[in-house]
Amino acid sequence: MQFHLNGFHTGDPDLAQPAPGAESQDSGMPETVDVLIVGCGPAGLTLAAQLAAFPDISVRIVEQKDGPLQLGQADGIACRTMEMFNAFGFAERVLREAYWVSETAFWKPDTEAPGNIARSGRVDDVEEGLSEFPHVILNQARVHDFYLDIMRKSPNRLVPDYSRRLSGMEIGEGDYPVAVTLEHTDPAHEGQLKTLRARYVVGCDGARSAVRGFLGRELRGDSANQAWGVMDVLAVTDFPDIRLKNVIQSTEGGSIVLIPREGGYLVRIYVELDELGQDERVRSRNITLEELIAAAQKVFRPYSLDVKEVAWWSVYEIGQRLTDKFDDVPAAELDTRLPHVFIAGDACHTHSPKAGQGMNVSMQDTFNLGWKLAHVLRGQAKPELLHSYSDERQAIAKNLIDFDREWAKMLSAPLRSSDEPEAPGVDPEEVQRYFVQHGRYTAGTATVYAPSLLTGTSEHQGLAEGFVIGTRFHSAPAIRLGDAKPMHLGHAAEADGRWRLYAFADAGDPMAVGSAVGKLCDWLADDPASPVVKYTAEGADIDSILDVRAVFQQNHRDLRLQDMPTLLLPAKGRHGLRDYEKMFCADLSGGRDIFDLRGIDRAKGCMVLVRPDQYVAQVLPLDGYGALAAYFDAFMLPVAAPVKAMEPA
Amino acid sequence: MQFHLNGFHTGDPDLAQPAPGAESQDSGMPETVDVLIVGCGPAGLTLAAQLAAFPDISVRIVEQKDGPLQLGQADGIACRTMEMFNAFGFAERVLREAYWVSETAFWKPDTEAPGNIARSGRVDDVEEGLSEFPHVILNQARVHDFYLDIMRKSPNRLVPDYSRRLSGMEIGEGDYPVAVTLEHTDPAHEGQLKTLRARYVVGCDGARSAVRGFLGRELRGDSANQAWGVMDVLAVTDFPDIRLKNVIQSTEGGSIVLIPREGGYLVRIYVELDELGQDERVRSRNITLEELIAAAQKVFRPYSLDVKEVAWWSVYEIGQRLTDKFDDVPAAELDTRLPHVFIAGDACHTHSPKAGQGMNVSMQDTFNLGWKLAHVLRGQAKPELLHSYSDERQAIAKNLIDFDREWAKMLSAPLRSSDEPEAPGVDPEEVQRYFVQHGRYTAGTATVYAPSLLTGTSEHQGLAEGFVIGTRFHSAPAIRLGDAKPMHLGHAAEADGRWRLYAFADAGDPMAVGSAVGKLCDWLADDPASPVVKYTAEGADIDSILDVRAVFQQNHRDLRLQDMPTLLLPAKGRHGLRDYEKMFCADLSGGRDIFDLRGIDRAKGCMVLVRPDQYVAQVLPLDGYGALAAYFDAFMLPVAAPVKAMEPA
Repeated sequence: MQFHLNGFHTGDPDLAQPAPGAESQDSGMPETVDVLIVGCGPAGLTLAAQLAAFPDISVRIVEQKDGPLQLGQADGIACRTMEMFNAFGFAERVLREAYWVSETAFWKPDTEAPGNIARSGRVDDVEEGLSEFPHVILNQARVHDFYLDIMRKSPNRLVPDYSRRLSGMEIGEGDYPVAVTLEHTDPAHEGQLKTLRARYVVGCDGARSAVRGFLGRELRGDSANQAWGVMDVLAVTDFPDIRLKNVIQSTEGGSIVLIPREGGYLVRIYVELDELGQDERVRSRNITLEELIAAAQKVFRPYSLDVKEVAWWSVYEIGQRLTDKFDDVPAAELDTRLPHVFIAGDACHTHSPKAGQGMNVSMQDTFNLGWKLAHVLRGQAKPELLHSYSDERQAIAKNLIDFDREWAKMLSAPLRSSDEPEAPGVDPEEVQRYFVQHGRYTAGTATVYAPSLLTGTSEHQGLAEGFVIGTRFHSAPAIRLGDAKPMHLGHAAEADGRWRLYAFADAGDPMAVGSAVGKLCDWLADDPASPVVKYTAEGADIDSILDVRAVFQQNHRDLRLQDMPTLLLPAKGRHGLRDYEKMFCADLSGGRDIFDLRGIDRAKGCMVLVRPDQYVAQVLPLDGYGALAAYFDAFMLPVAAPVKAMEPA
Repeated sequence: MQFHLNGFHTGDPDLAQPAPGAESQDSGMPETVDVLIVGCGPAGLTLAAQLAAFPDISVRIVEQKDGPLQLGQADGIACRTMEMFNAFGFAERVLREAYWVSETAFWKPDTEAPGNIARSGRVDDVEEGLSEFPHVILNQARVHDFYLDIMRKSPNRLVPDYSRRLSGMEIGEGDYPVAVTLEHTDPAHEGQLKTLRARYVVGCDGARSAVRGFLGRELRGDSANQAWGVMDVLAVTDFPDIRLKNVIQSTEGGSIVLIPREGGYLVRIYVELDELGQDERVRSRNITLEELIAAAQKVFRPYSLDVKEVAWWSVYEIGQRLTDKFDDVPAAELDTRLPHVFIAGDACHTHSPKAGQGMNVSMQDTFNLGWKLAHVLRGQAKPELLHSYSDERQAIAKNLIDFDREWAKMLSAPLRSSDEPEAPGVDPEEVQRYFVQHGRYTAGTATVYAPSLLTGTSEHQGLAEGFVIGTRFHSAPAIRLGDAKPMHLGHAAEADGRWRLYAFADAGDPMAVGSAVGKLCDWLADDPASPVVKYTAEGADIDSILDVRAVFQQNHRDLRLQDMPTLLLPAKGRHGLRDYEKMFCADLSGGRDIFDLRGIDRAKGCMVLVRPDQYVAQVLPLDGYGALAAYFDAFMLPVAAPVKAMEPA
């Protein structure tokens, strides 16, 4: 964390200076707002937390319910999501409270006694080295709490407006083209209406999204006619793997997916129920909690399951549904119209919960959208950038739906044994294989954005094989040069809407005049074509748009700070204090060298450009100045008065 | 973290169920209280946070100032203190905000140009493997904030009573023998007096302690007649090690100790000023901030130091002073009188700040006292136990004073070069050697309590060379058996006043009938002489006094939970839920095996008994039942109705 740049202050360093007027937010809804977010779920709160960081953006978030969520249904937090939480600054809190999914066990019918289950396998839940964070389980409500905390401490002091339902929306013209009507739902003001106009509206309002309805879009898909039950229980059992994640397939009882929960005692059990008739909905069956428990007990045989308390339960039918576009612009009008309304999360895609993807993909939706909205609202990027949200995220949602359909089908299929490969149904060993094969997918690290305006082509991928263009920046250890702190390089990046350019140096002496990193830094700091010069406004810190960091191959004790390029020791803030956190060295303490771990070309080095949402935009040679400039020129807007050339440090 | 044991609840798991009446605390001071803590510094707050955890203990903490500290002077947090913070549950928050002291650089006069300084060495600040936590720097006020947060969320919902000065104290007889008079110091109530009676009073009220005054005790010691200045600054400099800890010794300017601070920009500079005359106090010199800055600039030559902002500054003379006893019982009356008033922290020992020990030793004082008071107040231990506080901590403070005198002398001594070993003064290389040699001391891990009622003799030390009796339990990695979580064994222990017994198994099959750990567990669970049976009250959880955990040598995937001793899968709480967090295995993933790291006898295994304040009380053979029983019998009080023999799991 960096603070005190513009003067020492006491108290919580996460508590930002308030933006003008931020503290008076509770005086009711404004007439106009830059962004109106509808819905306080994981997608809405991720977006709110992101936008609240910018004092110059006005944002409101409304929610139909009358207060913060107390008990949520989602609980799986993928490694990739933890990386994002870390950028928001609350990964540590989640790690402390959550259940850590270290291993997954597989159970199938006991060959000796097919009415019983027996363990058939046990695997690491996440492959070694896939992320510096584990896969964890924590009630969605706590994730909300952490986001609400960030929002409250942000420059905008953003607090949701509860008890407000979207009852009307029209898209027109002008600076605030979206007219919105909100209806109070609290008893004291029930039915009262309030209209306001927004530049942008984002519907994070769930599977029955009102925003989606006003756009005339639909969730399309099918249902597998298979009922499942889910319950969070406190139970006494002799099932030995009760504190592991389990996929259990029994001969007579069907399947269970078991997920231990935070706190050491609570367990979530997904249990397969009956097949449904064509067009039959599970609600019509009036399935009781007792039936759910009985179904689970049947699968567990020969183990007992004595349920002492049920914190929450539900029944659902499996289905995968998807919206074809995530904004208000019809495909045919892409060239002539700009998006002003977006939908995200369950409003766009719904599926079965057992792969633990819902909350994760939803939050990644709005983490993708947030910085783009901020760029456009702050005049940094062309509004056409906003088309990329639906382009990028709809493709990801399509993958999710396909994956989920396959996984859900496997878990509901009848069993066959490996000796009868031709028989119908699924072999439990296939299930285990499928799970392991798709580990990166469920960890959230398999997302790849296709080449586009924002995602470069693979021409120079060979310079850093481990930073795959279009995937999230895969952090690795490094030693910070200024203070010798061992840390994760990726943790230098916060959710602050900035771009990161990591310059991985070649093997030569970085202190020598004319080193490749030195020349790159000079070009970045001084050349009129440099994105730093072109897009950083006068008076702003030199790293406020593009945060340039360098990583060297040498032992950190062998480098002299004072002989490094000026751009890497930038003077910032009102005092012109030097920022000592721009330079890193490889951690040479055995198996931790980032150049080895990420396959970086030691002879040539390279640049790795990373988007504000942590995805690798491009890999370029250290002298790829033109390509770097061209990347930004395609969508960024130059500032009228650029930052002054830097004074020598 | 474990929660939901007695039923599912939503919200922050750190927010404990309130004790009866806890929420009405703001209705003024009570007439009687179990413990009255005077002073809201680090010592007072550590004690308050510890005692607030017990719903059956009434505690109040009063402070002369009118609110929480905004800007404190202490900032060094030793590794050992981080271990304690982890037990209190806020280590992550400190790690996130603090500056990490990774390396220390040494500077001495440049041999080429003696008016300039040149770097002479650079060392790891803490030796590898000394603690799982780093040495960090964070403003004392933030540490207070974290403690206040714990207190607010505790069963007692404890909030300090500010603006209250201790104006009278008398020790008499009866259940509440200490009569105290508090004077309001806020303008609205100035001079109003309130009297109350306490079972125990603890003076954590600083170097000018009023509590110490009423006890008639004195801080005795001497002053080195050497003035120093200290300032927290935001500055621009070309000194390359500005983000490292530095010990700088110059020919003309004297010495500097430089400590980077949290946030990436702030730096603390201790700078040597003039020698003082005999009996001269530094205040009489009227030293100005400008003089301080000029003195620092002189030491820094040839580097510049352009101070932009000063967050805080002060001047002081070096002195080391100590009180001979930390409670109200005169040495001659040890056998006939029980202590009721204690002093801790700066009230007992003052010294120079540069070794970063003050806050750390003060907090360890009251972490030592807290569980003892809780044991006695809850009727678990004989009140004679309380004598051990002064015994143990006075000896530690004496060491501190001696260390500090030596270190301070070195830093103020004139320089001589290594070529003139006979000349007066100090060779800068000696300074570096002394620093490295005493690294464990400054990390807070060198504390050893001498053999006593609470600290065993070394008869069986050979069974676990790395868990040195009388020192803090040195945590090491382990895999939790129930959920395969890789973690630190020591982190299973919270600051909850419980004892831990770690049973390190021998190499045999722990699932076999008659295994040493199995037999130990049976004895602990069933034998009338067992401390678990003897000291655990009916209706309480089986681990509420002695928390037994086992560590096995085998790969965790090779052990069957269901074949383990019942005591290690105890049924707890109102539902009888099983606790799956009692068993661990060595982490076999290379260099992390706790049996190797801590030198545990693999053939025999052993028991390691750890006090509630994390110190190793005793190392015993796995069949050392008698010695274990005798240890507790020396100071514990058996319960009238012991816990029932456990039902089989």
